[in-house]
Formats: sequence, structure tokens, C-alpha cells
Amino acid sequence: MTTFADLHRVGDPLVLPNVWDVASARALVEAGFPALGTTSLGVAAAHGLPDGADAATAETLALLHRLTKLAVQLTADIETGSVEAAVAVAQAGAAGVNVEDAMRPAAEHASLIRSVKREVPELFVNARTDTHWQRAGDLSETLRRVRRYADAGADGVFVPGLAEPADIEAVVAAVDVPVNILFLPGRHTVAALAQLGVRRISTGSLLFRAALAAVVGTATAVRDGGPVGLDLPTYAEVNSAPTPR
Amino acid sequence: MTTFADLHRVGDPLVLPNVWDVASARALVEAGFPALGTTSLGVAAAHGLPDGADAATAETLALLHRLTKLAVQLTADIETGSVEAAVAVAQAGAAGVNVEDAMRPAAEHASLIRSVKREVPELFVNARTDTHWQRAGDLSETLRRVRRYADAGADGVFVPGLAEPADIEAVVAAVDVPVNILFLPGRHTVAALAQLGVRRISTGSLLFRAALAAVVGTATAVRDGGPVGLDLPTYAEVNSAPTPR
Repeated sequence: MTTFADLHRVGDPLVLPNVWDVASARALVEAGFPALGTTSLGVAAAHGLPDGADAATAETLALLHRLTKLAVQLTADIETGSVEAAVAVAQAGAAGVNVEDAMRPAAEHASLIRSVKREVPELFVNARTDTHWQRAGDLSETLRRVRRYADAGADGVFVPGLAEPADIEAVVAAVDVPVNILFLPGRHTVAALAQLGVRRISTGSLLFRAALAAVVGTATAVRDGGPVGLDLPTYAEVNSAPTPR
Repeated sequence: MTTFADLHRVGDPLVLPNVWDVASARALVEAGFPALGTTSLGVAAAHGLPDGADAATAETLALLHRLTKLAVQLTADIETGSVEAAVAVAQAGAAGVNVEDAMRPAAEHASLIRSVKREVPELFVNARTDTHWQRAGDLSETLRRVRRYADAGADGVFVPGLAEPADIEAVVAAVDVPVNILFLPGRHTVAALAQLGVRRISTGSLLFRAALAAVVGTATAVRDGGPVGLDLPTYAEVNSAPTPR
């Protein structure tokens, strides 16, 4: 059996779409993705909550419980996270978890990683550092942090915002564990990231934002008399019931 | 103050997008829509539930409670519905409700409408008949049902699936209350429906299906190296928090 860890292959990285509800997850499973992550932004915004304040942990756990009915590997974004939340994720049946440092001291984050691995050693802990997230990156600080998190037992490291090939190569060289990069449209391709040794590529909030753009674009096209795309799934294809009424 | 009923204008119909989470609703409010409905398919599928079995009533009510923080008129699709569900919708602060007959005897549905209007007279009850919904329509049965529901106190009638201009005109002529038509891409335009006297045009599951198509299209473009659309809202625009971290 292919484990979630097995999917992080050198040269053939895991492309991991991030979802916020069962419908987005089902559609991606049908499209052939072997694993899904959650997006904290998507789950929070779908519920009218702000991202980045551990505000949507309960909603993420509720979503995970619904997603475990699908035949797909799951990893949850629990933002900064806690041992309790990570244990709950494992108990929900997910294979992995993302915990982000939000630029707090590296020692604190390393300590969380160590505690999570002690409590739920089977859970794939992807340790995110926010050194490049919506800020000018500090590569030496990034390298220091990913090494520290790998030493603490992280099964993978994640540096969202990292874009420059040389920086990505440096992170890959710095740790033995899989490196996860956030896909940036127009900057990255899966093939190029694979060549740099990246073993996991996640979409973050990209799909969620694409969905919102489609919602507003379609609704305003209806209202304003513009063309409405016809290449949509049917009611029956979207409905969870075996047959429509 | 413009009431929800006021928005159903002859010649200038209410274009009512249907939403399934707070994020889709927020985006549409920002795009200028004065009122929103829920989509039972969207709410059900987002939670992994089948549509059409009153399975997602609790989820629709939970959504309504979150949506009432937005500055927008709301109407809820409670599928077949019940007096209890309609009262709960009114208590959540929504202005209207949709109840569908699912082709049960017209007398039963008329009785529900009468009971709902007795309990919550201020609630705009949009009575849906499924005579044309995913089936060959029977216009005379449709006319009989919409008259009966209007006589029972319905504030509007809804015939999803109705496409032919002559049929739409006949329904408009049959009742004094606003007629609601489901927008069918490629068949309808708002301008043409307005000319036929339609006073409300809803999108049903269209936006939800457009969102899913965007999710799968974007994820497979990332995976397969195709072009990824760049005209997306940013993280900060989507986040409910005032500023991103």
C-alpha cells in the first residue's frame, strides 16, 4: 500500500490540491489526485472567519471527518496548531498535518513538532516556516529553521512564498526530508520544481480563489448579459445522491 | 427601506445568485447583488450530503446564521420544507424561503404554504413546483399548481426548468404574484425574461457548478503544466481579516 509519505517522490512530486469542503474534495478525487490537503484560508473564509488565528480549527476537524469517507489520503492545515489539534487530526483519520511557525521563535515551533511526533508518531508532520510568506525572504533564517524543524522530527518542511530556483535548491540541499513549495501561478511549473528536487507542491488558497472568481464572473455575466460558460458539471454529476430526482 | 418583496420588479427583475458558504456570499455582495438565496444542492454537496431529501436543512440554517452578518437580503432553500424549518429560517433573520412540491399532491403543498404564512406572515414564501424540473413539463398542471399555491398565500411562484417563452408568459399571466425562473445558460437572458414579465431570476446550482469546474480546471492545469488563470482575487481580498499576516 502506498502511504502518504511514499507520495513525496524525488523527480515526481506530490501535487497536493487544497480543499475547503466535501464537494471540492470529491471533484478532485474524481480528477485523479491521490491526496488532498485542506486550506485554512478556504475553510475560514467559507465560514466567515479570519484566517491565521487558529479560528477555524473546529471547522477543519469537522471537514476532515466528512472527507475521510472519500478514498484519498488527507493532510490538514491547522495553522499554528497544537498537540491537541494534531492528535484530533490523526484521530479523524488524516495521514498528515501542517503546522506553521508564524515567525514565532524557532525553538517554540521545534518543541511543538517534537511533542506532536511523540503523541502521534504515525502522523506526517509538515513543518511550515513563514520566513518567505508575504514578506521579503531571509534565506539564511529559512535554512536555519527548516534544519531545526527536521531535527525536531518533522517529516517534511514547507516554505510558502519561496520562488527563486536557487533558493529552492538551497532548501532542498539543507534537509533530508521532502521539501514542499506553494505553487505560484506564472512563477512555477511542476516540471521545473520537480527538477529542483521539490517533493510536494501544494496549491494553498489558489483553487479556493479560482472558485470565487468563477462565482463572481458567472453571476455578473448572468446579470449583465455576458456569455456564461457552458462547460460545467451537471446537477447529477455534482449531487452526492446516486440519481437526481 | 427596500424590502425583499420590493426587489421583485416588473421589467427589472431580481437577479438572485444562490450561495453555499460565506465566502461565495461575501464575494457576491461585494459585486453588488442586493439579495442572495441559498442552493440546496450546493449546501448539501459541500457537506457530502445528497440533495433533495431535506438532508441539509440543519446546514442551511447554520449557514443562514453566518450570512446574516452581511448587508444583504436573504432567502433560504429548504427543499420540501416544513413549518418548523420555515420558522427557523425567519428566526435566523432571512427575508424569504423556497419550498418545493417535489410533485407531491398540490393540496399538501398548498397546506404547507398556508401553515407557513400563518406562523410567519412576514416571510416571503416562494412556492416551487417541480412540474418542469428535470422532466418533460406539463404546462396545464403547472398553471393549476401555481394558481393553487398563490391562492394559498404564496408570495411568489417558482418553476425551475421552464424554458419556452410562451410557457413562461402563460405562467406570468396565470398569477398576480412574482414569477421566478431558473436561469438556463444558453437558453435565457435576463433582458428576455424581463420582457416576459419574470420578476425573479435565480441561478440555482449554476454558480456552485462553475466553482467546481474552476477548481478542477485549475488543479489539473497545475498538475499537467497547462496555463493557470492569473485573474484571481488575492489572499488578502479573500481573507475575512482586515489585513493579512
